[in-house]
Amino acid sequence: MSNRIKNSTPKKDGYRMPGEFEEHKGCWMVWPERTDNWRLGAKPAQKAFVEVAEAIAKYEEVTMCVSDRQYEAAREALSSNVRVVEMSNDDSWMRDIGPTFVVNDAGDVRGVDWRFNAWGGLVDGLYFPWDKDDKVARKVCEIENVDYYSLEEFVLEGGSIHSDGDGTAIVTEACLLDESRNPHMSKEEIENTLKEYMGVEKVLWLPNGIYLDETNEHVDNIVHYCAPGVLALAWTEDEKDPQYPLSKAAFDYLSNETDAKGRKITIHKLHIPNEVLITKEESEGVDAVDGTLPRNEGDRQAASYANFYIANKAVILPLFGDDIYDKKAIETLSEVFPNREVVGIYAREIILGGGNIHCITQQQPLGKK
Amino acid sequence: MSNRIKNSTPKKDGYRMPGEFEEHKGCWMVWPERTDNWRLGAKPAQKAFVEVAEAIAKYEEVTMCVSDRQYEAAREALSSNVRVVEMSNDDSWMRDIGPTFVVNDAGDVRGVDWRFNAWGGLVDGLYFPWDKDDKVARKVCEIENVDYYSLEEFVLEGGSIHSDGDGTAIVTEACLLDESRNPHMSKEEIENTLKEYMGVEKVLWLPNGIYLDETNEHVDNIVHYCAPGVLALAWTEDEKDPQYPLSKAAFDYLSNETDAKGRKITIHKLHIPNEVLITKEESEGVDAVDGTLPRNEGDRQAASYANFYIANKAVILPLFGDDIYDKKAIETLSEVFPNREVVGIYAREIILGGGNIHCITQQQPLGKK
Repeated sequence: MSNRIKNSTPKKDGYRMPGEFEEHKGCWMVWPERTDNWRLGAKPAQKAFVEVAEAIAKYEEVTMCVSDRQYEAAREALSSNVRVVEMSNDDSWMRDIGPTFVVNDAGDVRGVDWRFNAWGGLVDGLYFPWDKDDKVARKVCEIENVDYYSLEEFVLEGGSIHSDGDGTAIVTEACLLDESRNPHMSKEEIENTLKEYMGVEKVLWLPNGIYLDETNEHVDNIVHYCAPGVLALAWTEDEKDPQYPLSKAAFDYLSNETDAKGRKITIHKLHIPNEVLITKEESEGVDAVDGTLPRNEGDRQAASYANFYIANKAVILPLFGDDIYDKKAIETLSEVFPNREVVGIYAREIILGGGNIHCITQQQPLGKK
Repeated sequence: MSNRIKNSTPKKDGYRMPGEFEEHKGCWMVWPERTDNWRLGAKPAQKAFVEVAEAIAKYEEVTMCVSDRQYEAAREALSSNVRVVEMSNDDSWMRDIGPTFVVNDAGDVRGVDWRFNAWGGLVDGLYFPWDKDDKVARKVCEIENVDYYSLEEFVLEGGSIHSDGDGTAIVTEACLLDESRNPHMSKEEIENTLKEYMGVEKVLWLPNGIYLDETNEHVDNIVHYCAPGVLALAWTEDEKDPQYPLSKAAFDYLSNETDAKGRKITIHKLHIPNEVLITKEESEGVDAVDGTLPRNEGDRQAASYANFYIANKAVILPLFGDDIYDKKAIETLSEVFPNREVVGIYAREIILGGGNIHCITQQQPLGKK
């Protein structure tokens, strides 16, 4: 039984979005299959998704949602450690289409079902249509018998918000104030909506995210809350790189801010990898479809180590085959998370689709034991 | 996590199919939608399915499986007492396509996934194709994290078997020995397969089921186990009715048989309703499709009160608007089940599709508390 809760908000009901580092019941993912986004019939991407799912399944339950068409393919490719359930979808970005789970002090869990418009709707959305994606959050809540809040109008993707679980949210102006999301609302109105539905007191507004990030610069590609008061930040030392001013502005902003509890913020820099460019072969493996963002040879990908997933007792980290920075990211996060295993996964096939490990996962908090 | 168990059987592993009258965790159903079987775009049938689901939901959990196409329609039509999950299907007979659940003494629950061929495959199946139906049992087990046995070759529908939970199964020869099911197997081989996968010691073989039953005369339309040693039997006093010899033969067979535990069998007669014939209007509401059994004006429906569903603390009974026999069926079952409420539901729209309340439901035993 899953009820839609009307005329209230998580904050009014005493719920908050936990930090990703708090204990999970499990993780939700969606199986990639659209051939106009994933090369070679999505087969290489599916292999990468399997690696991510199996890695997480060592630490918590994983459910893979998959269309009827691909159900048997997914079931065969995954071990029985991963639950496979049928769910129609337009693509495979569970972070953005899944519910944002919130909890109260008693350990009750609820979902928040935001409005989804494929990262920009008819303004600059990445594909059309997106109606199946927009139903995923509710379907997940139904399967789990979790009550949920549903926002009829407010457009938001889960990857455009982070929570420290302790009163503070972090977002980017580039995404949340873009005309393709909620152009009828002021920054203050948007902030108030976040406070009500994430159950936070304060919202930190970074100006930007990662250079050329097709999501209008989601926050989850540039920073990650590691603990209350502690952020990992995508960084570059190369002042000529277009990412430099974006990361520098974020660093400067955060250095001068405090969170909802008045803490100064500790920043761990994660140097971005050397440029990841789409090859001719990779580009040619993708079907051209009018209305879907093309994948052109030479396009720079928004590759960032900040796009990791925190599982129970582990950090699942994207790697890019970068001789220097892969190793550095592992080292940095091993220090930041001394009690978690840092598991690196070669994620080129995921970034080629426009996101990374954090974008394809959605944690469900443990709640009541 | 749901594992397919290979190289074993429920019987070998200490599992048995419980009686339907044993305690349930819940009930599974599928939302009707195919317009070549259900008149008027399946809308009247959907109303009847909603009534059944809501009635059962007062006594145990109910999950309605529904295609993506109809998901919102089902979600709107059902109260939040019913869980709605997406599942592709070819039609809505969960009894026949769902898993047969088995339990062991420790209260562990497993599923049996029989091979489904739409009641006869290319010989006399009722529609084509049936591949989505054939995947339903496994998908249900996945959602519930229940391990399951899968029979690659053996064709069987859940409505063609009943179990007393105490060592005895009952089936019909008309169905299980029909050439459209397992023609390569002898009666003895079929019986042995039932013993292994239902976890029983003895199989009772009625010769026939209900006259004109398009399932090749499923056992669940003619008898129902009410308790070990106690059966309800569809009956008629009209010796000219084509049903008479079929029910009489069943009665005579059962009167001379004992079950696995050596009990004589108590038989409660449930007189069938007066003829239920398809009207012109009803026939015209169904789309004609080559390969699907037509619904012609004047066709007699296999209407029987034995096609009820036993829920926790209730019996959900199909009614046909019959002035005499509806009431008699309620009276008889109220006596047979003194500790359950008998809930009658007008089920004409269900029988028009070829089955009844038992055919559209599948119980999941409670298992471990």
